[in-house]
Amino acid sequence: MAQLVVTPLASSHRFTAGDELLSHLLEALAQVQLSLEDYDLLVVTSKVVSKCEGRVVPFDGTAQMREALIIGESRRILRRRGPLHITETHQGFVNANAGIDFSNTEPNTAVLLPVDSDKSARALRAQIEHATGVTIGVVITDTFGRTWRNGVADVALGAAGIHVIDDLRGQQDDSGNTLEVTQVAIADEIASAANLVVAKDGHTPFVHIRGLATKHFGASSVAEQILRSANDDLFR
Amino acid sequence: MAQLVVTPLASSHRFTAGDELLSHLLEALAQVQLSLEDYDLLVVTSKVVSKCEGRVVPFDGTAQMREALIIGESRRILRRRGPLHITETHQGFVNANAGIDFSNTEPNTAVLLPVDSDKSARALRAQIEHATGVTIGVVITDTFGRTWRNGVADVALGAAGIHVIDDLRGQQDDSGNTLEVTQVAIADEIASAANLVVAKDGHTPFVHIRGLATKHFGASSVAEQILRSANDDLFR
Repeated sequence: MAQLVVTPLASSHRFTAGDELLSHLLEALAQVQLSLEDYDLLVVTSKVVSKCEGRVVPFDGTAQMREALIIGESRRILRRRGPLHITETHQGFVNANAGIDFSNTEPNTAVLLPVDSDKSARALRAQIEHATGVTIGVVITDTFGRTWRNGVADVALGAAGIHVIDDLRGQQDDSGNTLEVTQVAIADEIASAANLVVAKDGHTPFVHIRGLATKHFGASSVAEQILRSANDDLFR
Repeated sequence: MAQLVVTPLASSHRFTAGDELLSHLLEALAQVQLSLEDYDLLVVTSKVVSKCEGRVVPFDGTAQMREALIIGESRRILRRRGPLHITETHQGFVNANAGIDFSNTEPNTAVLLPVDSDKSARALRAQIEHATGVTIGVVITDTFGRTWRNGVADVALGAAGIHVIDDLRGQQDDSGNTLEVTQVAIADEIASAANLVVAKDGHTPFVHIRGLATKHFGASSVAEQILRSANDDLFR
C-alpha cells in the first residue's frame, strides 16, 4: 500500500527580493519535525520564488498600468473579456492576466511569474540536496483557471528531479488493449494535491509530499514536456 | 498541521452490470485495515461506476462505430483532428471522445460515462453512510486532457458530501487586498491527488483520502457548480 502523505509547511516570513528560499524551507520543515528522505517532494508556490528572485514591480492600481504589465509579460493575447486577459506568456504558459499577482502582494506592487521556473526548481533542488544529502523532487506551482470548468486549480510551472509526464505509451491493459490514456501530467497532479492543504492566507509557501512512486523521479522539464506547442493545440 | 493522507484501495474484481460498488469498496477498505471516519473522502473512478450501472456497449473496433458512439454521447463536437473529437457531452462535460473508454475494457466493448455522476455519487454516499454510520464525501473521477498543456489529469465528474468549489469571494489577504483567486475547484484537485496513487493496471478503482479540511464538506454538485456554461466560456 503506497500512501501519499501531503503536509503543509507554514512560514510567517514575508519574502522579499534576495531572500534565500532554502533557509526558510528548512526552518518550516524543522517546525513540523520533518526530516527529508530520498524520494520526497517539495512543492513551492511561484509567488515566493518570484519574490526571492525580485520579480516584484511597482503597481499604482490603475487599469492602464494593470494592462501594460499584462501585455509586457505576454507574447500573445488569446482572448479578452473586460479586465480578464487570456494570455500566452513569454514563458509559453497560457493563463489569465499573464499570471501576474495583483492581490496578496505588498501595497502598490504586483508580482510577476518567475522568468524560468524549471531553472528555479533545479537551483532549489541542488541547494536542498547539497544541504541535506537526499535526492528529492521540486515542483513550483501557480494557480490557473481552466477552459470549460469553473474554479481554479494549481498546476506546475517548473520542476526538477521528477518526470513531469508519466509516459505509458505502448503499455497494455489486462485485456491486451493498448492504453488510450498514455501521458499523465504527474507534475500538475502534484501541484493540485499540494494545494488541498494550503491555507489561502498566504502563509503556506511550501508543501511536503512523501510516497510518490519512485518511478516518477528523474529529469524533465515543464516547459519542454508539458507546454503544448501552438501547432499541436486545437484551441489557439 | 493538517496532513492529507491518500491511500489506494485495490480490487481484483472485474466489475460488471448490476454489481454493487458498496461491498467491493468496503472489502477494499478492510484489506488495508482502514475504518472510515467522519470527514473521510472516497474517490471512485467513473469506469467502475459505469460498469456497475450497465453503461457498457458492444464495440466492433471499427472507426465507423467508434465515431457513431462518440456522436451519440455528444450534444456538440467542438473540434476534430483525425480520430480525436473534442466533444461537449450530453452531461455538459467538454472532453475527448465523449469520455468513452475504448481501452481497458472487456473485449468488443466500450464504456460510456455515467449518465449522472452527481447522482451516482449521492447514491453511493448514502449507502456508505447507511452501512458505516459516518459522514463522508464521495468524488467520482475521470481522466481528461487539457487545453494548452500536454498530458491528462483526473477531474471530478460527480460529487456528494463536499463543496466542489471553495468559494473565497470577498475574502481579503493580509494586506487588505481582496483575493483575486476566489473559487478553487477542490473536487478536481481531489481527483488529481487521488490519481497520483492509482496504478494504471486498472486494479485501483477506489482511493481513500483523510485530512481534508472539514469546511470543504457539505452539499454541492459538479454539474451545477463546476461545469461552465457555454455563454461564460471564452473558448467555445
